[in-house]
Amino acid sequence: MIPVNPDRFLADLHHLRSFGAAGVGKGVIRPAYSAPDIAARKWLAEQYAGAGLEVAVDPCGSVFGLAPGKSLLVGSHSDSQPEGGWLDGALGVICGLELARAGAEAGVPISAVSFQDEEGRFGVTTGSRVWAGHSTLEEADALVDSTGVSFAEARAAMADMVTGPVDPSRFTGFLECHIEQGPWLDEAGEAAGVVSDIVGIRDMRMTFEGEQNHAGTTPMHRRRDALQAMLRFQSLIAERFRNVVTPQTVWTTGHVEVHPGSHSIVPGRCSFSMQWRDGDSDRLARMEEIIRTAADEVAAETGMILTTSAMLGLEPVPMDPTIRAALEAAAEAQLPGRWRRMQSGALHDATSLAKLMPVAMLFVPSINGISHAFAEDTDEADLVAGLKVLAEAVERLA
Amino acid sequence: MIPVNPDRFLADLHHLRSFGAAGVGKGVIRPAYSAPDIAARKWLAEQYAGAGLEVAVDPCGSVFGLAPGKSLLVGSHSDSQPEGGWLDGALGVICGLELARAGAEAGVPISAVSFQDEEGRFGVTTGSRVWAGHSTLEEADALVDSTGVSFAEARAAMADMVTGPVDPSRFTGFLECHIEQGPWLDEAGEAAGVVSDIVGIRDMRMTFEGEQNHAGTTPMHRRRDALQAMLRFQSLIAERFRNVVTPQTVWTTGHVEVHPGSHSIVPGRCSFSMQWRDGDSDRLARMEEIIRTAADEVAAETGMILTTSAMLGLEPVPMDPTIRAALEAAAEAQLPGRWRRMQSGALHDATSLAKLMPVAMLFVPSINGISHAFAEDTDEADLVAGLKVLAEAVERLA
Repeated sequence: MIPVNPDRFLADLHHLRSFGAAGVGKGVIRPAYSAPDIAARKWLAEQYAGAGLEVAVDPCGSVFGLAPGKSLLVGSHSDSQPEGGWLDGALGVICGLELARAGAEAGVPISAVSFQDEEGRFGVTTGSRVWAGHSTLEEADALVDSTGVSFAEARAAMADMVTGPVDPSRFTGFLECHIEQGPWLDEAGEAAGVVSDIVGIRDMRMTFEGEQNHAGTTPMHRRRDALQAMLRFQSLIAERFRNVVTPQTVWTTGHVEVHPGSHSIVPGRCSFSMQWRDGDSDRLARMEEIIRTAADEVAAETGMILTTSAMLGLEPVPMDPTIRAALEAAAEAQLPGRWRRMQSGALHDATSLAKLMPVAMLFVPSINGISHAFAEDTDEADLVAGLKVLAEAVERLA
Repeated sequence: MIPVNPDRFLADLHHLRSFGAAGVGKGVIRPAYSAPDIAARKWLAEQYAGAGLEVAVDPCGSVFGLAPGKSLLVGSHSDSQPEGGWLDGALGVICGLELARAGAEAGVPISAVSFQDEEGRFGVTTGSRVWAGHSTLEEADALVDSTGVSFAEARAAMADMVTGPVDPSRFTGFLECHIEQGPWLDEAGEAAGVVSDIVGIRDMRMTFEGEQNHAGTTPMHRRRDALQAMLRFQSLIAERFRNVVTPQTVWTTGHVEVHPGSHSIVPGRCSFSMQWRDGDSDRLARMEEIIRTAADEVAAETGMILTTSAMLGLEPVPMDPTIRAALEAAAEAQLPGRWRRMQSGALHDATSLAKLMPVAMLFVPSINGISHAFAEDTDEADLVAGLKVLAEAVERLA
C-alpha cells in the first residue's frame, strides 16, 4: 500500500474547513469564487507544490497538482454549497493530495485536482464539464448565478492564478472519493461503498394553467384550480410508478409556484419542478412516458393548459471495470464484509469525466445520511478507512 | 318608484372608470389611496354636493353624501383591486349617488357612501370595519401593505379632505348593490339576486415541517417530504368534506410556499393557506374539525411537525328581513321570474355594518362569473334593472 499518512490527511482535512468555517458545527460556507474558496485553492496549490507536484490552474479555476508523465488523477472539488458540510468535495480533494504526496514518496505518479463550481453556483459541475468538453468556456461564461453575477465575472477573481489549459490525455483515469450523502452505509454499519454507476437524471418544469377566480364566489364544480390539478398529477404518477420503479428510483417535486398566491383567489397557475433519477436509461424513459401521459390526462380532465419546459437529461454513467475491481479488491482486503457495491444517486465530477477517461468512485458513510447541511459528518475512522482503500487500490493499479 | 335616471346613472358609472382606466377592456387600476382613487373620491364628493347632499369624509377617507335627518344609507366602495373590474364596488357607489339624487328630487332622504380600502390593500373592508367599530383607527393605522407602507401613511394623502367622524346613528339601514362575482345569475339568465345572507369565512395558515434532504440520495421510503404531506392532507379533506358540504360550500388553498424550493432538494417545509366559506356556522365548525384532524393524522403518519396560525373567523351575516322583503317585492315587480334569493360567497362592506344597523344587498349578474379582473362586465340592461329594483325597494321602505 502506498504509504499514506492518516494524521497528515486528517490535519489537512480540518485545515481546509478553516476556509469559510460557518461557526455552526463543522459546517463551511465556501461557494465557488467566494473569497474563502479562492483562499482555499491558493492553500491547496501550495500543498501540491510542497509535495513536489507541478501546479496548474485552468481557466475555470480548477486547481491541479501534476505528477510527471502519465498518471492517475485523484480528486473532487473544494467549493461548497451556500450552507455546506465540511466533507462534501473536500474529502475527495484531500484524498487526492495525500495520495499524490504519498505516491511521490513511493515513486507512484499520482496527480490531484480540485474542480471548480461543482456545487452549481453557475451550473452543474461547471469546472469539470468545461474541462471535459461538455460545454465550452464561452457557454459557461454566459451562465449567471442567482444574484445576476456571470461566470465570466466570477472567474476573473482567480485570473492571477490561471496557468492555462491542462491536457486530459496525460491522465490514465480519474478516481473520486466522496461521502455517500445518503443513509445506506451508515444504516448498515458499513465503512465503504464501491460505486457501480452514477444514476441518470431527468429534470423539467411543468405548468398547469387553469382559471384564476374568486375563492368565495366560485363554486367547487366550476373551478379550474391549477394547484388541485398538480395534486391530482402527483397522486397519479405515484400510483403508476409502482410497477416500474426499484427501491433506488427517486422522484421529486422540490419547487412549486402557485399564482397569484392569495388566500382568497383560486390559483390560476401552478408551475412545479419534476425530477427523477435512476440507474437505468430505459426506466427513466418509462417514467417520462408515465409523467407526460398523466399530465396530459389531468390537463384534459380538469381543463388545464399544460406546458412543459425542455427536459434536462443526463444518462447513467457506469464506472470503469478495472478501477472498480481494484477498489473492490482493496475494500475487501481493508474492510472485509464491511463494504458494498452501490449506485450513486448524486452527480459528481466523475460524471463529467466519464466520456474522457476511465472513472471510478468510492463512498464513505454520511452520519444519518445528512449532506448539503452544516450537520454533515463522518466518523474519522471511516475517513481513514476510505483513504486506505484508495491507497491500496491505486497500488493494485500501478 | 323614486325617479332614477338610467342615462345619468350609466354616464356617471362610465365617468368613474376614467379614474385609473387600465387601458385593457373596461378595467381599472384604482387601489385605495392611489392618485386615481383620491381623484375619484374628490369627483364623487362634488357629485354629492351637486345633488344637495352634505359632504362628509371620515378619518379613513370614506366619503359620505348626507341627506338631512334620518335616512337610509346606500353605497359600496370605489377603490379597486390592483387589476380590477369597472363595476366591483363602483356600481354600488353610483347606485347610491343616483338614488340619493333622485331621492332628493322626490323628497325621500337617502344618503350615499363610498367606503375606503374595501379591497384590502391594508386589511379587509378596512374603512367600513373601522367606521362600524370592528377595529380602532389606531389598530388600522398599524396595518402595512405589501410594500411596507402603513395605513397611517397612506390615509395622510387624503387628510385635506377629512371633515371628521360620521355618526352611524343617523342611518336607518344600509343597502348595497354589487355584481355577483360568481356565475349563478349569468348562467341562469336571471337579472338580479336578493342576498339572503353573506357566508362566514375561516382562514388560516398551516405548515408541515419534515426533513430537507438530497433529491438524488434520499430513498423514497426515507423521505419526510413536506409537499407530499400537504398533498395527502388535501386529498383527505376533499374526501371527508363530501358528507358535510353543500353545493355552496367552498374551500381553497391559494397560497403555497415550498422550502427551500430547489429542483434537487426534497422539500423540508410546506406552508399553505386554508380558507373555507359557508353560510352556516355549524358547518364551518365541522369543516374546521375535519381540517384539524386530517392535518394531525397526516403529521403523525408522515413524521411532520404541524403548526397552524391563528384562525381568522367571520360569522355568516343574515340580511335584514324588512329591507330584504322590500327588495324581493321590488325584484318580483320589476323582473318577474327573473330574480332569485341567493347567498353571497364574497365579503362586502355590508358585512362590517351588520352589527350596527339593518343591512341588505342586491346582486346583478357578472358575465361568465368573472370578477377581480379587467374582463369583469355586466350587461347595461342588467345594471339599469338593478337600479330600478333598488329604487322601487327604497320607495316601499320610505
